[in-house]
Amino acid sequence: MAISDIAPVSFIGGKLVILDQSKLPGKEERIELKCKEDVWKAINGLRVRGAPAIGITAAYGLYVSMRHELKSVKASGNDFRDKQVFGDILKECRDYIATARPTVSNLTWALDRLVNAFKNSHPKDVREAAEILLKEADAIRMEDEAACEAMGLSGLKLLKPGMGILTHCNAGALATSGYGTALAPVYMGHERGYMFRVYATETRPLLQGARLTTWELEKVGMDVTLICDDAASIAMSNGMINAVLVGCTRIAANGDVAAKVGTSALAILAKAYGIPFYVFAPTSTIDFKTPTGDDIEIERRDGREITDMWYGEEVVPEGIKCYNPAFDITKAEYITAIITEKGVVRPPYADGLRQDEL
Amino acid sequence: MAISDIAPVSFIGGKLVILDQSKLPGKEERIELKCKEDVWKAINGLRVRGAPAIGITAAYGLYVSMRHELKSVKASGNDFRDKQVFGDILKECRDYIATARPTVSNLTWALDRLVNAFKNSHPKDVREAAEILLKEADAIRMEDEAACEAMGLSGLKLLKPGMGILTHCNAGALATSGYGTALAPVYMGHERGYMFRVYATETRPLLQGARLTTWELEKVGMDVTLICDDAASIAMSNGMINAVLVGCTRIAANGDVAAKVGTSALAILAKAYGIPFYVFAPTSTIDFKTPTGDDIEIERRDGREITDMWYGEEVVPEGIKCYNPAFDITKAEYITAIITEKGVVRPPYADGLRQDEL
Repeated sequence: MAISDIAPVSFIGGKLVILDQSKLPGKEERIELKCKEDVWKAINGLRVRGAPAIGITAAYGLYVSMRHELKSVKASGNDFRDKQVFGDILKECRDYIATARPTVSNLTWALDRLVNAFKNSHPKDVREAAEILLKEADAIRMEDEAACEAMGLSGLKLLKPGMGILTHCNAGALATSGYGTALAPVYMGHERGYMFRVYATETRPLLQGARLTTWELEKVGMDVTLICDDAASIAMSNGMINAVLVGCTRIAANGDVAAKVGTSALAILAKAYGIPFYVFAPTSTIDFKTPTGDDIEIERRDGREITDMWYGEEVVPEGIKCYNPAFDITKAEYITAIITEKGVVRPPYADGLRQDEL
Repeated sequence: MAISDIAPVSFIGGKLVILDQSKLPGKEERIELKCKEDVWKAINGLRVRGAPAIGITAAYGLYVSMRHELKSVKASGNDFRDKQVFGDILKECRDYIATARPTVSNLTWALDRLVNAFKNSHPKDVREAAEILLKEADAIRMEDEAACEAMGLSGLKLLKPGMGILTHCNAGALATSGYGTALAPVYMGHERGYMFRVYATETRPLLQGARLTTWELEKVGMDVTLICDDAASIAMSNGMINAVLVGCTRIAANGDVAAKVGTSALAILAKAYGIPFYVFAPTSTIDFKTPTGDDIEIERRDGREITDMWYGEEVVPEGIKCYNPAFDITKAEYITAIITEKGVVRPPYADGLRQDEL
């Protein structure tokens, strides 16, 4: 199977289709999203996940939602040649989809790109207005594919054949429209015969590593081993791991990184064991308005994700209190390098990350 | 509920009864162990666990096994007045039970104490010989209770009321015949109104933290919060944790510690965040014949503990490779202090741990 066949989001023949990741690895089910409610449910229910894939789904999702709304309003006889009316409905759809996962910055970023493309254009009619949206969604997807490839090529220069690579959560093809972020160099190395050994952490509580990373790496025939999150330290200590590669959710101006909970632990462990720790993210992930990691609010999720979500029997006493943060902050000092589509930057950063240096 | 009511192993009215920990927290089931096969199954199947509790079960288990064997052999008419014959059957039972969990040093340590007590004695008859065994088993249990209390008192001096305490796996009442090891000062503080907040890691893959530590702490009305193993770093970073308290399996002569997988990660993280990291273990856990942690072989367990054990559905692609070590090594330099029944020792140790200083 080729990496492109994983296709978490595709838009072919006018149909927006996603692979339902909430069913993986048990079932490979693809579903079509036809209206804003479908899009909201897919994003909110983690059927599509990974910041870039969410952005792409939201972008095409806004387009198909408008197509759907226009159809139903057209049926009621309204005039859609009016840019104001189109804009109002667009805003309504945008605002609705944006609530699906408010903490994922790529979601609003992608939606707003379409809204702004429309605002800055002069469509003659509904068809033209819709085409502007579709063109912008296509652009977002193609930029993501190119960014994955660029990160992969930059990342590959940091790795050597035969290396043991530890990754956390899922920053692979399932999270993007291309090679993934952190897994891009892994796939590219695989295509070049690098014979990596990949170690995937389970990534409690949502098990993205166990369910998704192992699934997609095995699909393309890679050597992948699953470990519990608490086994990362012994794996590093006994020489199994030569590099840690992770994705992230947001990068602060000073180079601190918000990423899947547990990422900061891997960074601190990697430093203690003298193993390089690399963060992969497109520059769109850098939030220059957020000075440091301390300024990033961490999403806290329902404790039932820990106590109930996957289990067949009662494994936790009923009613136990849980603390379930979705992300944590990795300080810049623990990061060997950040790899974006523009290249590799390494701390310490004299004045934080600088836009002109990226 | 009082801590003594947790009673993972009890010997009352001549009956050896254990709380089946493999059924917790869903069911509180107590089972009687009557013969060596019962004892073997209970230890091998993790129905009783925690090094001290295993030792105590093995000790009483050897006594009840002998009682059972003597009954059946007596039925066949043999003469059990002969010390040699008694000793042969004792050795047979000892060797059989010892295979239940070969890596737990407390198991053979406890069995051999009974065997040696018999060897060094001059019983007049079978009844006297059996009494020697029972007396030794009682001694092991009482020493454990006293050790837990002594560790608790020493540990309590290192803690302050209101502290947030992180613990890993289960080093509590369920693992011993008393207050537990790492949890002894926590319980003692609770009895004195210290109002600790305890954070228990899940401890994948066997979930001893989620299933057992939360259960026993809640039983006595303590404030306990469950976190995923990968959330320990953020919990430490945001000030929730003031001390980390863990038990261990074996201590090497240089002060390196073999403990539940993930312990070494918590120690490294605690050091990075400036949080004290305490290891609790009776001196019987110190293995002066093992120079360093590197000399301790780590038990690797079946990957199905990760992929299949608790889940109601398929969460991992079938046939995925797993790496599932049961323990890891925490280097002495990451340990703030080791607390034994004899007091508190702190690295660096000029010539390793010294028996006369403990």
